[in-house]
Amino acid sequence: MSVAEQAPHGYIGDKEAYLRRLKRIEGQARGLQRMVDDEQYCIDILTQISAMTKALESVALGLLDDHLAHCVVDAAAAGGPEADRKLKEASEAIARLVRS
Amino acid sequence: MSVAEQAPHGYIGDKEAYLRRLKRIEGQARGLQRMVDDEQYCIDILTQISAMTKALESVALGLLDDHLAHCVVDAAAAGGPEADRKLKEASEAIARLVRS
Amino acid sequence: MSVAEQAPHGYIGDKEAYLRRLKRIEGQARGLQRMVDDEQYCIDILTQISAMTKALESVALGLLDDHLAHCVVDAAAAGGPEADRKLKEASEAIARLVRS
Amino acid sequence: MSVAEQAPHGYIGDKEAYLRRLKRIEGQARGLQRMVDDEQYCIDILTQISAMTKALESVALGLLDDHLAHCVVDAAAAGGPEADRKLKEASEAIARLVRS
Repeated sequence: MSVAEQAPHGYIGDKEAYLRRLKRIEGQARGLQRMVDDEQYCIDILTQISAMTKALESVALGLLDDHLAHCVVDAAAAGGPEADRKLKEASEAIARLVRS
Repeated sequence: MSVAEQAPHGYIGDKEAYLRRLKRIEGQARGLQRMVDDEQYCIDILTQISAMTKALESVALGLLDDHLAHCVVDAAAAGGPEADRKLKEASEAIARLVRS
Repeated sequence: MSVAEQAPHGYIGDKEAYLRRLKRIEGQARGLQRMVDDEQYCIDILTQISAMTKALESVALGLLDDHLAHCVVDAAAAGGPEADRKLKEASEAIARLVRS
Repeated sequence: MSVAEQAPHGYIGDKEAYLRRLKRIEGQARGLQRMVDDEQYCIDILTQISAMTKALESVALGLLDDHLAHCVVDAAAAGGPEADRKLKEASEAIARLVRS
């Protein structure tokens, strides 16, 4: 990772909102441990996992939007090989999300 | 939820292994908060979310296998409306997983 | 594939309904070719692909239900290694659907 | 749909390659009808559906890449409300793909 990539990127729309959503997802992961430990009904655990997956997916889509609107568009405006690299990188991230 | 569904179900193959995997997923959720708080590079955060989604999916598939092999097969052997109900419930859980 | 697996399985609930749905999906695939050939707007093509994917997914979930309710439950009632094999095979098919 | 959106968009990288892939997907849809009509083994039909879903997904990801690299980047370079609209539209298409 280059120095540029370690520096704050400032692309995140509303950091506090993302942190709250991720905190809630962490809570869901703890809730799942309690459900498994109590051997709660399997279908209820699966329902909870589906909800958590949807919450994660929604965070990912939000971050991707912020990224497209800032990093990718800025790089594209600047042009050159950096623009191609950013587009390729975004495409690969989208493919991973679609396939996961 | 009926009393029966609140009681331990004993269908979970290896409880300790599931708890370890969920503990790791909880750690990933905390790691994501650090990454967002540090404004790390968006693509790296998305890669981490894809990994976490896959880990959750894999826990869900394991629990579903245990459930099919125990609850559903037992209910099916007993027959009657309970068998139909269990099959319907499992189908709906599978559909939620496929669509999430 | 064994001889048994080439023989009609009789597990399909309503064959005519599945054939009609697959015929419609084939029509969607032809429609997509026209859209690409006419260079229609990309977002409209992607919307059409999402609809077709959902239609396919829904056929798969229906067939899986029929399979669980017949082949898997029957094998489970009979017990033995065949029951384990059928469950394992169904689990793998579910995992492929969840991951695709 | 505006007149602009009905006109050829010229964003498609290699039209012949997409048409060949969609033709193959149409063939898979016909193959599925034969499999259901012959009542072939359910698990084999599901495997075929997973392959077809993956092929469709891969066409969608290719078209999305072409779209991002042309329409979205061009609109972003031009700026203004059209840029925002294109980004929003692309985000929604990505969300539909991730969720389907």
